[in-house]
Amino acid sequence: MLVRTRNPLNIGAAARAMSNFSAFHLRVVTPYEKAFREAVSAVGAAPLLAEAEEYDTVENAVCDCSLVVGTTAIGHRELQHELYSLDEAAKTIRKKLTSGRVAILFGSEKTGLSNHDLSHCHSLLRIPTREEHRSMNLAQAVAIVVYELARRHSKVQAKSKLSPAAANMESINRISAALLEALHASGYINPRSAATAEEKLRRMLRRFQLSSADADVLLGMLRKILWKLKSE
Amino acid sequence: MLVRTRNPLNIGAAARAMSNFSAFHLRVVTPYEKAFREAVSAVGAAPLLAEAEEYDTVENAVCDCSLVVGTTAIGHRELQHELYSLDEAAKTIRKKLTSGRVAILFGSEKTGLSNHDLSHCHSLLRIPTREEHRSMNLAQAVAIVVYELARRHSKVQAKSKLSPAAANMESINRISAALLEALHASGYINPRSAATAEEKLRRMLRRFQLSSADADVLLGMLRKILWKLKSE
Repeated sequence: MLVRTRNPLNIGAAARAMSNFSAFHLRVVTPYEKAFREAVSAVGAAPLLAEAEEYDTVENAVCDCSLVVGTTAIGHRELQHELYSLDEAAKTIRKKLTSGRVAILFGSEKTGLSNHDLSHCHSLLRIPTREEHRSMNLAQAVAIVVYELARRHSKVQAKSKLSPAAANMESINRISAALLEALHASGYINPRSAATAEEKLRRMLRRFQLSSADADVLLGMLRKILWKLKSE
Repeated sequence: MLVRTRNPLNIGAAARAMSNFSAFHLRVVTPYEKAFREAVSAVGAAPLLAEAEEYDTVENAVCDCSLVVGTTAIGHRELQHELYSLDEAAKTIRKKLTSGRVAILFGSEKTGLSNHDLSHCHSLLRIPTREEHRSMNLAQAVAIVVYELARRHSKVQAKSKLSPAAANMESINRISAALLEALHASGYINPRSAATAEEKLRRMLRRFQLSSADADVLLGMLRKILWKLKSE
């Protein structure tokens, strides 16, 4: 998923690398000006670009995904997130892909992912570039990530053990909304700090790694509690 | 080593990726027209480009190397050469690098390496792209090769990050008790099936693998909600 990409060449090149390594689902979020429409169809990437989906927010772009991983060049930008090296992250991602969709977010060439983008991520991954020259070209970073993901693919498929289906972001958001409402109703959340509380809450729920079934149960509980709170 | 590269942008991007992964010695062989001199100094790649050496033949460019590996997108172009997948080749290359220089040749964007170029190679490597779309962007191919070569280095250096302290059973039980009380108060739990519900609930909470910090937050939320439910 490319967020606020500025350079059409990068979108084309990223698409080509994705196609090289069988990662066929490209989503772009508010690409800079008309970078998306002007994206040069890099060799062999035309079918993938034609199928690419454009979104106006990260939130909408990830809502059917059960794992959202941000990419960063920086060591410890956000202590709220676990930071994994690419090969560690790739293991988790390959596993998750057996039960749901995984979004990997790449920020803009200039500024990377914003804190707001990161609030939608479960964890962060870093490509292990050298300390003194960490910042990579966007399309090259995409290429290395899809290469690493495809790396063990065949082996993994052979012995893929099914884990229970993970909750997608849509149900996590519903739980988040219900819990938030209950916390407002009970006075737990101070209206002045509501925005921060909401972000913290969303991050916490993501850490729980809910299965789809558990998410349904939890949502049912929260709605019942909420109903009672409101029926006073 | 870039042979007959046509696009200055590719030379710049290749240099950037090399710099990212500590591969500092770039050699170019008869780059197309003036691609080398026009090479855009990609972010952070200026020192590497300044040190890059230009040669008129592959023969001269590889003469101080003890292993010469060609890159190819094609399966079995040259039966005279052993063809290795990138990760196999990387093992050999890393080993050779302890005792001498290794050249990795990348051909032109259009035609790859010629038979004449290949006659200077000991073996070939192929990046395992999918059958239907083998041809990669040159700079992305370089990026993936230097990433793979640096791979094991970073693994040794990587320090495993400590995962946050897990919540102990005592706090899980407290959360369980508070949630249970809220569910009773809201009528979610039918008194007749309370025992089963309690067990299910406790099992579910265990699946969340709460950290100690998250458990405290969650308990605080539940107690506040509970207090509100009971204050009716």
